[in-house]
Amino acid sequence: MTLRLALRQEIAYASYLNVQTVILPPPRHRSHVASYARAINECLKSATYINFSIRLPIYDPAVFQPKEKESPSSHTSTPSRSTTTSPPSTPQIVMPRASTPRSLKAARAPEGELNATWEMWDVIRTICDYNTRLTLTLDLTPPLPSNAGVLNRWMAEPVQHIFLPASTFIANVKGYPVLPKGTQSFVRNSMTHHPIIIMSGVNSGLHTKGGESAYAQYVRHVEKTSTAVQAAMTAGTVEHFAQGYQDYLQNPLQPLMDNLQSITYQTFEQDPVKYRNYEEAVYHALMDWPDSDRIVICVAGAGRGPLVQRSLTAIKRSRRNAFVYAVEKNPNAFVTLQGRKQKEWGDSVQLLFGDMRHVELPELADILISELLGSFGDNELSPECLDGAMRFLKSDGISIPASYTAHLAPLSSSKLYNNARISTDLKGVETPYVVMFQNINILSGDGGGVSGRCGSKIQTCWEFEHPRKDATVDERGLPLTNSHNVRSAKLSFHIPHAGVMHGLAGYFESILYGDIGLSIHPHRKEQVSKDMLSWFPLFFPFKEPLYLPSNSELHVSIWRLTNERQVWYEWYAESFLPVFNAPSPPEHSEDASGDGSFFASASTHVAVPSPVIDAVDAFPSLERSETRRSGEESPRSTAGVIKIGQTSLHNPGGRSSWIGL
Amino acid sequence: MTLRLALRQEIAYASYLNVQTVILPPPRHRSHVASYARAINECLKSATYINFSIRLPIYDPAVFQPKEKESPSSHTSTPSRSTTTSPPSTPQIVMPRASTPRSLKAARAPEGELNATWEMWDVIRTICDYNTRLTLTLDLTPPLPSNAGVLNRWMAEPVQHIFLPASTFIANVKGYPVLPKGTQSFVRNSMTHHPIIIMSGVNSGLHTKGGESAYAQYVRHVEKTSTAVQAAMTAGTVEHFAQGYQDYLQNPLQPLMDNLQSITYQTFEQDPVKYRNYEEAVYHALMDWPDSDRIVICVAGAGRGPLVQRSLTAIKRSRRNAFVYAVEKNPNAFVTLQGRKQKEWGDSVQLLFGDMRHVELPELADILISELLGSFGDNELSPECLDGAMRFLKSDGISIPASYTAHLAPLSSSKLYNNARISTDLKGVETPYVVMFQNINILSGDGGGVSGRCGSKIQTCWEFEHPRKDATVDERGLPLTNSHNVRSAKLSFHIPHAGVMHGLAGYFESILYGDIGLSIHPHRKEQVSKDMLSWFPLFFPFKEPLYLPSNSELHVSIWRLTNERQVWYEWYAESFLPVFNAPSPPEHSEDASGDGSFFASASTHVAVPSPVIDAVDAFPSLERSETRRSGEESPRSTAGVIKIGQTSLHNPGGRSSWIGL
Repeated sequence: MTLRLALRQEIAYASYLNVQTVILPPPRHRSHVASYARAINECLKSATYINFSIRLPIYDPAVFQPKEKESPSSHTSTPSRSTTTSPPSTPQIVMPRASTPRSLKAARAPEGELNATWEMWDVIRTICDYNTRLTLTLDLTPPLPSNAGVLNRWMAEPVQHIFLPASTFIANVKGYPVLPKGTQSFVRNSMTHHPIIIMSGVNSGLHTKGGESAYAQYVRHVEKTSTAVQAAMTAGTVEHFAQGYQDYLQNPLQPLMDNLQSITYQTFEQDPVKYRNYEEAVYHALMDWPDSDRIVICVAGAGRGPLVQRSLTAIKRSRRNAFVYAVEKNPNAFVTLQGRKQKEWGDSVQLLFGDMRHVELPELADILISELLGSFGDNELSPECLDGAMRFLKSDGISIPASYTAHLAPLSSSKLYNNARISTDLKGVETPYVVMFQNINILSGDGGGVSGRCGSKIQTCWEFEHPRKDATVDERGLPLTNSHNVRSAKLSFHIPHAGVMHGLAGYFESILYGDIGLSIHPHRKEQVSKDMLSWFPLFFPFKEPLYLPSNSELHVSIWRLTNERQVWYEWYAESFLPVFNAPSPPEHSEDASGDGSFFASASTHVAVPSPVIDAVDAFPSLERSETRRSGEESPRSTAGVIKIGQTSLHNPGGRSSWIGL
Repeated sequence: MTLRLALRQEIAYASYLNVQTVILPPPRHRSHVASYARAINECLKSATYINFSIRLPIYDPAVFQPKEKESPSSHTSTPSRSTTTSPPSTPQIVMPRASTPRSLKAARAPEGELNATWEMWDVIRTICDYNTRLTLTLDLTPPLPSNAGVLNRWMAEPVQHIFLPASTFIANVKGYPVLPKGTQSFVRNSMTHHPIIIMSGVNSGLHTKGGESAYAQYVRHVEKTSTAVQAAMTAGTVEHFAQGYQDYLQNPLQPLMDNLQSITYQTFEQDPVKYRNYEEAVYHALMDWPDSDRIVICVAGAGRGPLVQRSLTAIKRSRRNAFVYAVEKNPNAFVTLQGRKQKEWGDSVQLLFGDMRHVELPELADILISELLGSFGDNELSPECLDGAMRFLKSDGISIPASYTAHLAPLSSSKLYNNARISTDLKGVETPYVVMFQNINILSGDGGGVSGRCGSKIQTCWEFEHPRKDATVDERGLPLTNSHNVRSAKLSFHIPHAGVMHGLAGYFESILYGDIGLSIHPHRKEQVSKDMLSWFPLFFPFKEPLYLPSNSELHVSIWRLTNERQVWYEWYAESFLPVFNAPSPPEHSEDASGDGSFFASASTHVAVPSPVIDAVDAFPSLERSETRRSGEESPRSTAGVIKIGQTSLHNPGGRSSWIGL
């Protein structure tokens, strides 16, 4: 109750001073967190005019050290030599050594306490139900860890203030205050939050040169040199283009059911990269095509004509004789096309009005060009539309795009979670949204995980290829059913650091022709289609956050389903913790799934009854060996996993979200 | 898609035959479970006129054995000698040995596969969102395990059919078919589900005597001898009294705000045990009281007079001179009291109309008697009411009851979960309900868990004592605030077997006087107040099910809170998995929280990077050492735990449920 009273006094004082945000100290002890959080939640409900921000040290062993433990300093390993040692004394940068058995102890303590800080925050905000009036004040009082993987998690949290005491600064060779490398880059990255920087002790003359203003000047310098800030200020970048759209949830288009508005076409036509790549693809296709007196090109879904224009340019460049058919179902766009034909294109183009799934072409095409891709590749029904248009294409014809793939990664973001919950109905949390990601963190890591059977950080779900032969078609060349466009994937992710999963990040990659493509895959977009603006990623939300411990495994199941009128996605996830076995020679491997497992061996210490053993569950490791990498067989393969959690099935039967055929 | 088609054919055939329930075979392989479940969910939505029941072997190694593993038989340890070995060959009863290190291997496999069956079911019903049209058909084809802890979990699931092939039966000495002991008791316990027993092969002459009818006859015999069935048929038992109320959610009473109806009084007055114990308590209090010419008794909340009557009887038995004041605020009940005074009690009783928190008594009482207890003890505001009535009591006076305690245990029940969700609003899943438990399973176990720091299966939250001295009172003897009635508890439970938690089971115990009490605590009610009918347990629901792996630890936080007008409860839970350390001499214990921990040692095998270590979280063990048993210090105390899950905070600020003052 004392805490309750203390908080009430804080509020009274704040409202007396007319303060809008009260910054609260962290709970005194971790065992108080739940009660501390409950009391804060009570205040959030009662004092609706005040916001609360909890000051948390990113890493302060002192806060979490149990009394009887060694002093924090002995936990932090040798200070970074990279920083100068001139007075004032350099704060220690914690550099966990690579955890070879010998250095385990050195690395463990800081890591554990790093999680401790974040887990404390996670309990508080969970108990406060992600209240948007509850934010973080990150206290960067040294020492600060330099483990990027651990620091990235704060990108997904509502960091409103950064507390930066003068003691965090070190003196550069000239004696001016500067930040140690680790702190520097962290503050730089944090600028995406547009945090309020709170400085203290700047007038205590801790540093010989520059005086008070030097600290603020330096911080401004750091902000200016932040990549996020710079990108946002540079014209032509996605960050610049997307100003105001960061973490904003857009409902995906219904391209078949609705006709796009002129403004939408205009936005998409702004993209300099996408159409350049299309032109290149057409150009190379033409060059590779056996020179004939007449190459027939069909643009399926011509819109206001950008692809027609690019095709004509490509034809000119390639010095080939080619004719272009342009099919478009949107009457408004068709008017624009007619105007452009009259003014610009003339007889080299013939316009056809109608749905590409129903119109007839006077002749078969050699090259079929379309731009029907969505953020997840197939999520705007490119497969279904092209099924309808393949009738136009010669058996040896070329489709641009030739193929596309969908990709997924587990995502954490308190902001996106709250945005998806704004609409209180089920629909809000079962709809895949188009989002320009900013305050998010991808939870997965590379390297196969502890069991060695997990996939990479971002994984491929499925692929669509055009032209395709697998669909059975009727006499008109249209598929009898849509079942050949059903897909499903089961992916295993490794989660190196504890985090809360709020959904899945969806990306696409496409091969237009040859080595020319389009990509929003975080690892490859720079090489494939740098500065392309047309697609933001997709966000598949979770109804409920899924807590994932450090080094857990996440199994994601996703389906692309269809009936006569609709296409939709369903998604589901399970979480596991690995248990280990000593590497054993292959001939014993069959009964090793239990032998010497963590639980088994542990039970020998503490005499745990048989129930302990039934925790070791062999099957998910079977699963994994089926899904992928069944080749890779190592002593690891004897590891089992324990199931620890699961989500519900999202969007069953397309009840909340679907795309109309 | 083949599965999808197969299911559709099943449905078509079923509707052709006008069948109401389709019994489906289990998925072919565990890696197919998610897709299998999704397909079933689709059918549940499309074929709303048909129910589905999934036939699952309770334990069939063959289903789950990966190809390269040893044969099931080698997993099952020596067959139980308790069963006869006359032809036909006795099915093996799997008896996992106590898992001393040597027998670990023998015990492990069956245990693991037992979990496998249930976990398969859990994934299916979770993906089907606990659809009530999806039930279980338990296949008891031998061998059946004899681990009760593992079998109990099926009590919490919707078992609609039990599949009992003739091969499950063994021959008794006379050659008649009977069930092996393990199967026998399991079927007996399962009768609470009122399952449909499906028998097969009864005409194959597998047993020499009795013929076809013998099997059915035997099963009927088993049903008759089921304790649940017998109790339900025996008058005077709670089971008999509660017919039709099993697993039915009742909203708790608002005794202060509302006046009870006559019918409610009548129901409560039926209880033979409660009032007998009250009479005994009053009798002994009178006997212990120094004999004076006039002992003053006050019945606070007399209702229709049962306690007045019992007091008079006790006075008569004790041969003491005593006078009874009866206070009642309910005008309807007061009319009845007046009638009884006129006809039965005469001048030995004086009636006072009004709220015990406001009426005045002509003189101070020696003994204050009340019956204000709820299923959770204080949940009908006995503490607040008695605070108001203590003014009547002499400083050395006696309160009956003298004290009461609230108790909690983690509960699993798909039925209760569904019943709480019927009302789609938040209120439904944040209200503590009064429930006669039937299809439930308590997930916790005794024995302190792996870390040795967990409490017992059912744990005490808090206690209230009367008379009390801690409350500061005004000149009228009434407390200034109600803050002294605020309570909070943090409990640690050991979860031996994997299960899904759907909420908390609440019980109370009360000391009326001396060694006379009232209890609905499952372990003590038989001794304290056998066959007492007045109270069913309380059920605190969870918004979302919480998955708990075998041998996990559950931390429950619960608060009793109050403002000027209301009292309410808030509850929250976190789940953890223990990690172990080799026992180490105390002088090293301070840095053992990491050393040789499961993850650390494991990482030496598979070269896991430092993130692995941050999984080891020291603080919850600190917590526990604070809460309880801090005395017990063993090598175990160096074990850490990994957080794996949490719930949201339920009923914050009493938004969904509260009791009015």
